[in-house]
Amino acid sequence: MADTAAKRETDTVGTDELTQKVKRARVDDENGDDGVEKDPESENILSEFKTSAVLSDSAREKTIFIHGKLGDQEAVVILEKTPIREDTLAELFTGSKLKLEMKNDIYSTYQLLAPAKFNEIKTTVVCPATEKHVKKYQRQESSLVEETGEDYKSITLPYIQKQSFSVQWVHNILDKKAETERIVFEDPDPDVGFLLLPDFKWDQKQVDDLYLIAIVNQRDIKSLRDLTSEHLPLLQNIFQKGKEAILQRYSLAASKLRVYLHYQPSYYHLHVHFTKLGYQAPGCGVERAHLLADVIQNLQSDPEYYKTRTLYFPLRAEDGLLGQFKEAGRL
Amino acid sequence: MADTAAKRETDTVGTDELTQKVKRARVDDENGDDGVEKDPESENILSEFKTSAVLSDSAREKTIFIHGKLGDQEAVVILEKTPIREDTLAELFTGSKLKLEMKNDIYSTYQLLAPAKFNEIKTTVVCPATEKHVKKYQRQESSLVEETGEDYKSITLPYIQKQSFSVQWVHNILDKKAETERIVFEDPDPDVGFLLLPDFKWDQKQVDDLYLIAIVNQRDIKSLRDLTSEHLPLLQNIFQKGKEAILQRYSLAASKLRVYLHYQPSYYHLHVHFTKLGYQAPGCGVERAHLLADVIQNLQSDPEYYKTRTLYFPLRAEDGLLGQFKEAGRL
Repeated sequence: MADTAAKRETDTVGTDELTQKVKRARVDDENGDDGVEKDPESENILSEFKTSAVLSDSAREKTIFIHGKLGDQEAVVILEKTPIREDTLAELFTGSKLKLEMKNDIYSTYQLLAPAKFNEIKTTVVCPATEKHVKKYQRQESSLVEETGEDYKSITLPYIQKQSFSVQWVHNILDKKAETERIVFEDPDPDVGFLLLPDFKWDQKQVDDLYLIAIVNQRDIKSLRDLTSEHLPLLQNIFQKGKEAILQRYSLAASKLRVYLHYQPSYYHLHVHFTKLGYQAPGCGVERAHLLADVIQNLQSDPEYYKTRTLYFPLRAEDGLLGQFKEAGRL
Repeated sequence: MADTAAKRETDTVGTDELTQKVKRARVDDENGDDGVEKDPESENILSEFKTSAVLSDSAREKTIFIHGKLGDQEAVVILEKTPIREDTLAELFTGSKLKLEMKNDIYSTYQLLAPAKFNEIKTTVVCPATEKHVKKYQRQESSLVEETGEDYKSITLPYIQKQSFSVQWVHNILDKKAETERIVFEDPDPDVGFLLLPDFKWDQKQVDDLYLIAIVNQRDIKSLRDLTSEHLPLLQNIFQKGKEAILQRYSLAASKLRVYLHYQPSYYHLHVHFTKLGYQAPGCGVERAHLLADVIQNLQSDPEYYKTRTLYFPLRAEDGLLGQFKEAGRL
């Protein structure tokens, strides 16, 4: 379940997700013979790694995702440089070599060669890797889709129903069968109530990248498209109590929050995203996010706003729904 | 002007800007005694750097901006880890030490200790640094402001008028007194026409981070707030011809574009942003961007939509307009 949430909520694939998955798996897996290696030192298995392709990389984030072979097995290797930590600065400044590149007036640039121990690269290996792993880490182009109210009824809704994406994990949370210890706030009202809990992408160690999700108690609201003015009490309740709960728990004022819905959402049970303003959370772009305040306002002036409007959203090249829009000649 | 545009359009300060500035300065400065040091090896001047504060950092981008002292002078030091380069992978895999952290089923994670030469950190020093430099690199908290139609008239509009922000550089472009060689497309019509040109943030070397701006010929439309249904022909013309021009010039299809306006804008002469979908352009977040397609649709169903709506936008702590909202008791 957790898996689904983490994966489906992620626009760009990072190593954090995998680390979380592995951590979780390790906790779950408490029997003796679980293949968990305890010896921290090991031979360099990567010395035999043969690269076949770079799946994606980011110069900005200093990450690279590589597909290749370890012996005769397919493998994916993910490398990510580690952040520069404040508590290492003193040693970094005294223990490094500095090579001047350019000096002009008050500006100068250098190459700094840090001591070996600061040269750590976080490495994740998936082996044997399936085709699914390879695809998951491959950079995928998105296309913007234009969905009229009619398109929703004739293309999107039938596709969602046919796929019958499982939201069992959401029901488990609402039924208190899972993740009860993670709940930050609860309003048990069956109509306007919801559960607020941290998103899996957030490690809760600092508010800089605060990310919580409000999951509504009502089970029959799939997405923004289902909302009408009759849902205004629900939306206003989430907006108000969600902000209050975050102020209470994390001392973060409402004016520091970005509160929004996704369309398309990652899973078809209505939920609202609360993220820290200034944190570029994946999926906070105007092409996918809808401010809850705008949604409320639009429904107030037109009860059928989200039934009738043309909505725009990006879909990845491999998304089945994109295929449906292409087939219908809508792209 | 270039500077103003580039600066005002930039939400986050990066080292690139500084590097560019330095490069430009170096080219300009061709006389002998220009203080440019030629010897590439130098003593480690940073060994004497005393940190007074971390101005900002990014775990995601592996950067840190530090304020401190070099001797008795104020200085700002910027460190940024270098990207992982594809052409170094073979050596990285064979020449590194690998320390196992965790192994579970097909997943394992390691700390990889790379050879010293891969341990380069791009370093920029500003010394002596002024207070302006320090402020520039300091992380600035933003607050989300709620602006009703009434607030616009009583707070924002008077503030804009009083500040009389200069858009002379925009007029220079429209009058062909500047940047004529940068024009990508032109529609000279005085009512619905516009000029399309690359944004300063885009180096035009790859379409991955494509960024163009359409500047309207009409000189009396300040922002989204001024738009009514009478501007629909203008907006539709920009949307249509802008997309066509980008397809023509850069072979990029309309479905790969994110087309939007900012509110608040950086300058009060109506302009539209065209960026590549998938490129996390600064300012493309839902809290500031408004899809042009949505704007058109909203004006079609309510000619006064943007006159009457409450609009939400972030303002930095130091923004004068934020002060006005606080003074009016609206925050």
